[in-house]
Amino acid sequence: MLNDDLLKQIEFIKEIDKLKYIQRRTKLLNSDRCENDAEHSWHLAMMAIVLAGHSNATVDILKVVKMVLIHDIVEIDAGDTFIYDTAKNHTNTDEELLAAKRIFGLLPTEQAADFIAIWEEFEAGETSEAKFARSMDRLEPLLQNVSNNGGTWREFDVDYAKVYHKKKVIADGAEAIWQYADQLLNESVDKGILKRQ
Amino acid sequence: MLNDDLLKQIEFIKEIDKLKYIQRRTKLLNSDRCENDAEHSWHLAMMAIVLAGHSNATVDILKVVKMVLIHDIVEIDAGDTFIYDTAKNHTNTDEELLAAKRIFGLLPTEQAADFIAIWEEFEAGETSEAKFARSMDRLEPLLQNVSNNGGTWREFDVDYAKVYHKKKVIADGAEAIWQYADQLLNESVDKGILKRQ
Repeated sequence: MLNDDLLKQIEFIKEIDKLKYIQRRTKLLNSDRCENDAEHSWHLAMMAIVLAGHSNATVDILKVVKMVLIHDIVEIDAGDTFIYDTAKNHTNTDEELLAAKRIFGLLPTEQAADFIAIWEEFEAGETSEAKFARSMDRLEPLLQNVSNNGGTWREFDVDYAKVYHKKKVIADGAEAIWQYADQLLNESVDKGILKRQ
Repeated sequence: MLNDDLLKQIEFIKEIDKLKYIQRRTKLLNSDRCENDAEHSWHLAMMAIVLAGHSNATVDILKVVKMVLIHDIVEIDAGDTFIYDTAKNHTNTDEELLAAKRIFGLLPTEQAADFIAIWEEFEAGETSEAKFARSMDRLEPLLQNVSNNGGTWREFDVDYAKVYHKKKVIADGAEAIWQYADQLLNESVDKGILKRQ
């Protein structure tokens, strides 16, 4: 007889395949092809592992990796929200909470609660793990936009001040990485791919 | 002044973006769209975290996650080898080792050595972590082919005996998951999407 927990876990594993269809606004490096959420999540997990030594605080890296692997799963139901969207607040919406409960709720009870807690911790952005995970989430599209001649900054007419405001949170997770990111932003202004306004 | 290690790590992070272009033969669930290696690696990492409790042995789950996140990075240079390809041996080739040295070699020395060691451990398949990671790598395409009316089994005329031989290694990592997989294979024969020959 098959383990009931295993069957629930398999249903969850099948359901999250849908993350591969959720398109982000940002494009792959040096590309005009949009990135999807599964690719994005894989890249953040790799970045977190590679860059862990630059975290301001000592972090539980397995928890950081879990955070970045699951942070966008709610978008299967709620859709991707563009970070520079002025109409919709890019924070933890009721819609995303419902999505978390439905999708993680496919798992056995205790595991579902664990995943929801990790997702909520990431969204709250208060612990060292959440701060470092969020700094990865801000760094990747910066690299992408720089490689794509301004990318979504130019496409959606986003100026330096707005970008700076969003990217500055990298410093909360990793000051050394923020120094690098800050330099990239200044170089982008100098190159004319990010306008100072 | 920017940290030299950080600059090397950023170069590695940019280089592995190419994994998003490496196409596998298997398709997404209930789909005719090929999966790419980045999506595949993300899905295996999620599966490893969700299914860790079924591992035959207690495993260092962070190491398993690292294994599945990086296991296909060598394919950026060496390309994807189809598991049922009869002309090319799907084991650790010289080409893949060269790729590992080039790509992981972009990282600072110690970190490069760590990644190469983890990749080699996965390829050797001898430790508990490698066995469990490899069972994830065999399970995902099984779920995909079942959802796609036989998928690559039918497309490339692969019979039950060959599939059974490849999938049986799931038992080395997780006996409970193998029981589930074995049942799926038998059901696939009954449904006529995998031929007994």
